[in-house]
Amino acid sequence: MTVLSQLVMAVCVVTSLGAPAMTVVDLTHQLGKDSLFWPGQPPFNFTILHRGYYQVWKTWFENNHLAVAEHGGTHIDAPAHFAEGHWRTHEIPASHLVGPGVIVDVTDKVKDNSDYAVTVGDLKAWEDQYGRIPDGAVVLMKSGWSKRYPDAKRMFGTETPEDDTTYHFPGFDEDAARWLAEERSVVAVGADTPTPDPGIKSHSFPVHQVLLPKDVVLLEFVANVESLPPSGATIVIGVVNLRDGSGGPARIMGLIGPDADTSGCAAGLGEGMGLAWLLSAGVLLTNRIARAQ
Amino acid sequence: MTVLSQLVMAVCVVTSLGAPAMTVVDLTHQLGKDSLFWPGQPPFNFTILHRGYYQVWKTWFENNHLAVAEHGGTHIDAPAHFAEGHWRTHEIPASHLVGPGVIVDVTDKVKDNSDYAVTVGDLKAWEDQYGRIPDGAVVLMKSGWSKRYPDAKRMFGTETPEDDTTYHFPGFDEDAARWLAEERSVVAVGADTPTPDPGIKSHSFPVHQVLLPKDVVLLEFVANVESLPPSGATIVIGVVNLRDGSGGPARIMGLIGPDADTSGCAAGLGEGMGLAWLLSAGVLLTNRIARAQ
Repeated sequence: MTVLSQLVMAVCVVTSLGAPAMTVVDLTHQLGKDSLFWPGQPPFNFTILHRGYYQVWKTWFENNHLAVAEHGGTHIDAPAHFAEGHWRTHEIPASHLVGPGVIVDVTDKVKDNSDYAVTVGDLKAWEDQYGRIPDGAVVLMKSGWSKRYPDAKRMFGTETPEDDTTYHFPGFDEDAARWLAEERSVVAVGADTPTPDPGIKSHSFPVHQVLLPKDVVLLEFVANVESLPPSGATIVIGVVNLRDGSGGPARIMGLIGPDADTSGCAAGLGEGMGLAWLLSAGVLLTNRIARAQ
Repeated sequence: MTVLSQLVMAVCVVTSLGAPAMTVVDLTHQLGKDSLFWPGQPPFNFTILHRGYYQVWKTWFENNHLAVAEHGGTHIDAPAHFAEGHWRTHEIPASHLVGPGVIVDVTDKVKDNSDYAVTVGDLKAWEDQYGRIPDGAVVLMKSGWSKRYPDAKRMFGTETPEDDTTYHFPGFDEDAARWLAEERSVVAVGADTPTPDPGIKSHSFPVHQVLLPKDVVLLEFVANVESLPPSGATIVIGVVNLRDGSGGPARIMGLIGPDADTSGCAAGLGEGMGLAWLLSAGVLLTNRIARAQ
């Protein structure tokens, strides 16, 4: 263990003992009339019920009504979306809606290839740098695509957004999805594109077919992924708790907090180093109890 | 400092150094046809667009549409709900949607008094036990009322839920709301009842009138508050990011995590004790660097 790594670890611990300084990254596009939906969905509607002084209550009063298809804007796919008998929205355990963020950066790779699909190699390269993908992780592709939102032509990568056979945007490849489902234990996989399947797979959806039957939640049109550290944020998937839903609009947030890793605090902190700290804490405790007695 | 307090603190730190063991408490009622709304709202609607085998994509496929008034079920009031020119839903900074939970337990006090309103004294009693209400806190009343959901008569405390002049359920009193707005710096105030104003104030809404113009978000019909510790949970308010909304359905969750206080870890941990730990960490660091060299 190097002196530098000890210094980094100590700073992490000191930070976690000081005042909380949590940063919240909003990973959610605004939901409104320009929100993007897969073709064929009923239109979004927002109705103002009241906006102005309300005589009965003697106060300013605003009140509105919302009509929205489940699968538009920043939203989730529940396992039941493609997998009969699997979790509908309200059946997803809350513990599957919160997890450590694993941010896979393919910004450079998509620059000349709108059809790029995250590979098992990309996931293993992340692990080489930040350690094994933690159980319960939320894996997000970072392609820079969300800056195109809500421009439908640029987001779907086509001159004809109404025709889903013409799409070009990046996603995950089928083998990467299978590796995440079978070799790791993740709760959600998402993308800053319309869906974790690349656009050219928009009629076969291999990532949906692999992950949803394994009860992995999918996140679509995720915003601001570029503001997350590669490791160490906690991702919270605030999906509407819709009974019998197949998905739904979600407020997705990244929490970069006192015990999160923004600077390599957890990255590379293997089991051995964790054990060393447990032992140190034990020694510290013993010493302090001895001094107090 | 007692040996016991040192032991408790050491266990807290050790826990935070070990594998993350975050507990997620879902504070959200299911959103469905039985969801409770204030009288006069348009009816909730859930439309199945497709549920069955979908020939085009050769897969099982479920897909639905949702229509919902903003102010029903577990939801928020944005400041604009009652305060002209103040934040609408999409304008609330994400940093105001996450904060340390301050759970004020009035379960015993409401047993014989459905009109009970949380007082400044109740808030000060919480502080006596758990320390000053932290900046950015989410203050939640715990009355046990959410177990009545979705029984409208029991939840609104009336035989005539359609008549909002007949309501009886607990909330906060006006002075307590003013104290939170002026003497402390909280981001949200919520209740496990229909609204933080007590039912008997359902035509004057003093808590709304005091807090919303101060840009404090209100949380209504919060579920499962009884599963939160009095201090130490992080509350995440996953409201739909609705453009120009005056509120909206929210997935509210409590995170009880490695650095949260479930057993008194943070409770009573005053500045002096925090400083002692900072110094200890410094000594530990110095020793370890010395040994490594």
